[in-house]
Amino acid sequence: MNNFSAKELLRVVNEVQAVDSSLEGQARGHLDRLTKPLGSLGRLEDLAVKMFVASGGKAPQADPACIYTIAGDHGVNEEDVSYFPQEVTRQMVENFLAGGAGINVLARTSGVELMVVDAGCKGGAFPEHPNLIQRKIACGTDNISKGPAMDEECCLRAMALGIELADEAYAQGVKVLGTGEMGVSNTTPSTALYCAYFDLDPTDVTGPGGGIDADGVARKTEVVRRALEANAETVRCADPFAILTALGGYEIAALAGLIIGGARNRQMVCIDGFISTAAYAAAFKICPAVGGYSVLSHASAEPGYAKVIKALGRRPLLHLDMRLGEGSGAALSMFMLRAAANIYNEMATYDDAGVHSGG
Amino acid sequence: MNNFSAKELLRVVNEVQAVDSSLEGQARGHLDRLTKPLGSLGRLEDLAVKMFVASGGKAPQADPACIYTIAGDHGVNEEDVSYFPQEVTRQMVENFLAGGAGINVLARTSGVELMVVDAGCKGGAFPEHPNLIQRKIACGTDNISKGPAMDEECCLRAMALGIELADEAYAQGVKVLGTGEMGVSNTTPSTALYCAYFDLDPTDVTGPGGGIDADGVARKTEVVRRALEANAETVRCADPFAILTALGGYEIAALAGLIIGGARNRQMVCIDGFISTAAYAAAFKICPAVGGYSVLSHASAEPGYAKVIKALGRRPLLHLDMRLGEGSGAALSMFMLRAAANIYNEMATYDDAGVHSGG
Repeated sequence: MNNFSAKELLRVVNEVQAVDSSLEGQARGHLDRLTKPLGSLGRLEDLAVKMFVASGGKAPQADPACIYTIAGDHGVNEEDVSYFPQEVTRQMVENFLAGGAGINVLARTSGVELMVVDAGCKGGAFPEHPNLIQRKIACGTDNISKGPAMDEECCLRAMALGIELADEAYAQGVKVLGTGEMGVSNTTPSTALYCAYFDLDPTDVTGPGGGIDADGVARKTEVVRRALEANAETVRCADPFAILTALGGYEIAALAGLIIGGARNRQMVCIDGFISTAAYAAAFKICPAVGGYSVLSHASAEPGYAKVIKALGRRPLLHLDMRLGEGSGAALSMFMLRAAANIYNEMATYDDAGVHSGG
Repeated sequence: MNNFSAKELLRVVNEVQAVDSSLEGQARGHLDRLTKPLGSLGRLEDLAVKMFVASGGKAPQADPACIYTIAGDHGVNEEDVSYFPQEVTRQMVENFLAGGAGINVLARTSGVELMVVDAGCKGGAFPEHPNLIQRKIACGTDNISKGPAMDEECCLRAMALGIELADEAYAQGVKVLGTGEMGVSNTTPSTALYCAYFDLDPTDVTGPGGGIDADGVARKTEVVRRALEANAETVRCADPFAILTALGGYEIAALAGLIIGGARNRQMVCIDGFISTAAYAAAFKICPAVGGYSVLSHASAEPGYAKVIKALGRRPLLHLDMRLGEGSGAALSMFMLRAAANIYNEMATYDDAGVHSGG
């Protein structure tokens, strides 16, 4: 898909079908016949209904599931906005491949596959590895505080990469996708995207990311403000793809593609934390129908997240004060999807179990 | 333990060691060397620290884990306080043994064992089953709206049962216990216990339980008020064991014993929802040191739960709007303990992975 065009993106977007929420009643009806007080499994029931509806009316399936942890570097890192030096992006990719990172542990614990993707890391190729997909579009973005992060062609290529990943997973039978990312400084473009998409002020959304102190947050806030000014014309035009191009990153654009591609395939997509949700915001602005296929896995502890979630009008599933990224929250939420699917598929009905249904 | 005495209970309580919170720093120090921003796994890190401290400074272990779903009937059921008829207690025990209930599905999904215990169901013995422990103390409690639920000897026997279950699990190497219950009408004694232990008004804590309507809640509120009046002298004396005897149930007292017994063995105990938390409140009032070994698994959707949790000064782990009981929330939280233990034990350190630790 090297020559993936804006027209082709539009075609994919148009192929995403809005979910048919009239199917909800059928799923609720089934759940209400199971041996439990009505609605007593709360959000697990909501997840089961969402999966039923997203699939077009099939019994929920949560497995196999695969997390795509997509890596990219960011030119804005030169503005001293991160607690970690830029080489950590690359070092963490190596850590993912060695199996020692948080996402490795949580994906294993949840029984889901992990694929690591180089969409835009600085430096050359990584040694080959069965869990590594090397599809580097460029060696990091340009500095958004001075101009656009990417040009349109590169952003399209990144989105095409995500769409392809979803399609390859679909071809392998994967029912649930998870988003993950690694990219030193990538809370900065994420924050800029939130400001642009939801008309928020940088002071409302900028936080410590990997661990910068109050001075660092103040500096980062000004960098976000400069990024919005340097790309003011694009922000004003309010075209969501153009905003992603101007303020995003390769991993963020690829995740937006994964979210749209997954929705086109009627796969569920578990969205991770602060950065993944920025990718979701881009995908949702480009293609609102993705909402029916996505689960916001957890409430990021990054302080701006609460404002973002309010703007999105969504409610995250888990509240564990996590702010690691990598797909860590997605891994945990995939377990919850499995629990929901199993409830739907495996519980006895009142009739079958000979239990009085009350009332 | 048929002759388990108040003195013996006191001995067990005195053998529960308060956790040594000075060990926290050691666990935090280890977690801070792992390849993630400091504290970025939030409550998973808190869980790992809690497990480390509870074990007296050993690497956290979340497996094997076993849920005890303990059943009992309640004389107060004759006051028309439940959506379900009393025979549902027995029918649900049969459903548990057939594998079709919510707790069966969630225990399987979480990879934990489920044992079903008859502590006080109406009717005779159940057919034998490898997952069933038949230790019926009586065929249901007496009606708490007219007098005490149990006599002291029966309550001691129920607590001794729970202590024995913890000890048998410990002998089999079980590291984490989960509490579950089944007993039609058992939100009513739970509500009465909360009122007695935390000086709450019945209107603050009484809710729909299995699904009664507003009129039913009003009726149930008055039944709880009458239970507090009928047992006013016991409530006034504020002896937590006497209150459990007067207002509890066989499954609730057995769960209180399980919580205390588990703590004595330095096992972690995942407390389920509204009813299990009433058992926890009794155990905590009798033996405050259990706090160091227990995890409040999830925020029950039963409306009174928020007031209870405030009185306990604790924060539940999951917020999934669940109100099924049976151990369903405990099953999900046991997965989170496994995730926390694996993070602690399996993640690479910055040094080992050759990742720059930032700053």
